[in-house]
Amino acid sequence: MKDDLVERLLGEVIKKMGGSEPQAPAAPTPAPAEAPKALGALSGCGLTEFVGTAIGHTIGLVIANVDPLLHEKMKINPKYRSIGIIGARTGAGPQIFAADEAVKATNSEVVLIELARDTEGGAGHGCLIVFGAEDVSDARRAVEVTLNEVQRTMGDVYGTPAGHLEFQYTARASGALNKAFGAPLGQAFAITVGAPAAIGVMLADTAAKAATVQAVGYASPGNGTSFSNEVIFTFTGDSGAVRQAVIAARDVGKTLLATLDPSEIKSTTTPYI
Amino acid sequence: MKDDLVERLLGEVIKKMGGSEPQAPAAPTPAPAEAPKALGALSGCGLTEFVGTAIGHTIGLVIANVDPLLHEKMKINPKYRSIGIIGARTGAGPQIFAADEAVKATNSEVVLIELARDTEGGAGHGCLIVFGAEDVSDARRAVEVTLNEVQRTMGDVYGTPAGHLEFQYTARASGALNKAFGAPLGQAFAITVGAPAAIGVMLADTAAKAATVQAVGYASPGNGTSFSNEVIFTFTGDSGAVRQAVIAARDVGKTLLATLDPSEIKSTTTPYI
Amino acid sequence: MKDDLVERLLGEVIKKMGGSEPQAPAAPTPAPAEAPKALGALSGCGLTEFVGTAIGHTIGLVIANVDPLLHEKMKINPKYRSIGIIGARTGAGPQIFAADEAVKATNSEVVLIELARDTEGGAGHGCLIVFGAEDVSDARRAVEVTLNEVQRTMGDVYGTPAGHLEFQYTARASGALNKAFGAPLGQAFAITVGAPAAIGVMLADTAAKAATVQAVGYASPGNGTSFSNEVIFTFTGDSGAVRQAVIAARDVGKTLLATLDPSEIKSTTTPYI
Repeated sequence: MKDDLVERLLGEVIKKMGGSEPQAPAAPTPAPAEAPKALGALSGCGLTEFVGTAIGHTIGLVIANVDPLLHEKMKINPKYRSIGIIGARTGAGPQIFAADEAVKATNSEVVLIELARDTEGGAGHGCLIVFGAEDVSDARRAVEVTLNEVQRTMGDVYGTPAGHLEFQYTARASGALNKAFGAPLGQAFAITVGAPAAIGVMLADTAAKAATVQAVGYASPGNGTSFSNEVIFTFTGDSGAVRQAVIAARDVGKTLLATLDPSEIKSTTTPYI
Repeated sequence: MKDDLVERLLGEVIKKMGGSEPQAPAAPTPAPAEAPKALGALSGCGLTEFVGTAIGHTIGLVIANVDPLLHEKMKINPKYRSIGIIGARTGAGPQIFAADEAVKATNSEVVLIELARDTEGGAGHGCLIVFGAEDVSDARRAVEVTLNEVQRTMGDVYGTPAGHLEFQYTARASGALNKAFGAPLGQAFAITVGAPAAIGVMLADTAAKAATVQAVGYASPGNGTSFSNEVIFTFTGDSGAVRQAVIAARDVGKTLLATLDPSEIKSTTTPYI
Repeated sequence: MKDDLVERLLGEVIKKMGGSEPQAPAAPTPAPAEAPKALGALSGCGLTEFVGTAIGHTIGLVIANVDPLLHEKMKINPKYRSIGIIGARTGAGPQIFAADEAVKATNSEVVLIELARDTEGGAGHGCLIVFGAEDVSDARRAVEVTLNEVQRTMGDVYGTPAGHLEFQYTARASGALNKAFGAPLGQAFAITVGAPAAIGVMLADTAAKAATVQAVGYASPGNGTSFSNEVIFTFTGDSGAVRQAVIAARDVGKTLLATLDPSEIKSTTTPYI
């Protein structure tokens, strides 16, 4: 609870100091920098199912007992009576890396990750993430942790009207990253994302050359994305090497994205890598 | 707060510059409420093939004798020499439910329904619907009925910059709804749609719990949509129960969508359910 | 802060007024007419890999020695050590027809063409095109030629807030058009594109009836596009007939697109057909 409050205060301060521009349709992060709202409150909007919201038009919900009709249609393991739901118009990487922290911190499992082609007119994805839990309090907690973490994982997302860059890194991948990207459990894992996709190819090449890493995956507009205009490169290896590869790619990405549009390239919240 | 201010300023500036109603890129219904134009006129734009337009950047066309080259590529039953065409940038449900009325009212069949990922920067679909008819007057009449009905079926579409909600209901499903959603012919049938998709999951659960209905389908960003950021729940049952389920979902949807954006949540035209 | 707000307001107004200003989200050609930048310069942004940019948020890059990790993941023929990369937020046809000229003019091959669902909130595609070459100077030259040609091939692209039209024609198709559309090598080849897709159907019928041409392909929102709201018709034949078919379709397209939005329908650069 105290941590929640601190998070919210921090968010307010960031907002007052001038967050990123909201609603730019071509930018990947249209919502203003802000702390998740209504976290921990049972009824921020009068519905007990509502948990809170976060940057990127991200919403968090919980259903204590999923209706059997819906449960069957969603093809979720019947043992999970309760589900936590994260949905966002903008972003997939930030929410998935945030959900990975939630899996580590709670007694829940990520049972479904689907990527919409969205970003509100931008080049990337939106997402739908579902946590399964046997107990509703675990599902709710998983959603709360995710909403809080999104503030951090938006830190290395950079957008302009021409495209966007995204970088994520974790020292130890868990279930959400394994499910979404095939990340090896317990290993250091990172992704580089560039849009338009040509920039993403360059980021992948830069990361691969910058340090000794092992490629896990490569997704492009026609293969592995939801027709987003991105190339996503995912890799693992020694944690120092993985970080170094991300940082090298980030430098190149900023330089290239700047050639397409004069807007300043700044973090959506605060860089964390 | 900041968004509110920008919206107000924007309205003032547009007024001063004498522009038309703005088309919010993230809203599912960018066109202002207006009656279909040029309906029934043979040559609203000088082309006999033009039938008219409707809300949602919807256009209606008719081809009396489809060229054999095209007929073959479109894989339409050769017995239909004439086709009526409905295309829209924003919306799929409204046009499909409208086309269902056209099928009931005319001697035509819906031969093709395809959903684009569109909504002009929003989270949903656009659509292409083709009617087949042996006689051109039937094809034209089907298009006319559809364009007129879209005004009504946009009534329970609600959009904000953060997402949208859509609800449709009919007491008796016909060929268009059967083709698009597998609706049982002659039965009451309804859909709930929520974007971002997390809200759509909640609507489905609410509808399923509110009354005794039978699920027909469930579509999500990765299954059954064109990567739209929606969950679509479709169901049938006793007409009173189906209606009751829709109304319960609509109340919950408005409450949840409001947590993401301060914009007023209002009907695109006039609610009909 | 105040400057931020004013800048954003101006951007929103320009966007919502939907004129010929850059970045209109519903228009297929957001960038203003301009010459490709930094062409031929080795380091327009300080990176030797950067070749230049062009209209449509198009960027051109070159990698002299693709990292083996990436090379394998991209599934490119190993004999091509060097690759040239074209990426764009807006457009696919213009870049593909431009790349076709590059293939004719250089010792390179198009090894990959992928279409994103993009156009920055519009109805169409963005693209990723990769040239393979044994020598880096060939890859670079292919990218340069493409960036230069895009200025021409954007000439018969016409956009309004309601949709767009595109027409392309070549007297002699080469490897890029063969790979992307199955165009017969060495033959006259053209495409008509209309969005919303209903207009594209009409363009196809008009072209097919206007002259004796042979259909090569037909792509629609649900078949052959990346869920774009377009119908793309491709055809070959006698060069005079192919041109005549395109011109007839162009006239009809402008008339129809005008029924959906009052904006002037003008060429993105200068018509070439």
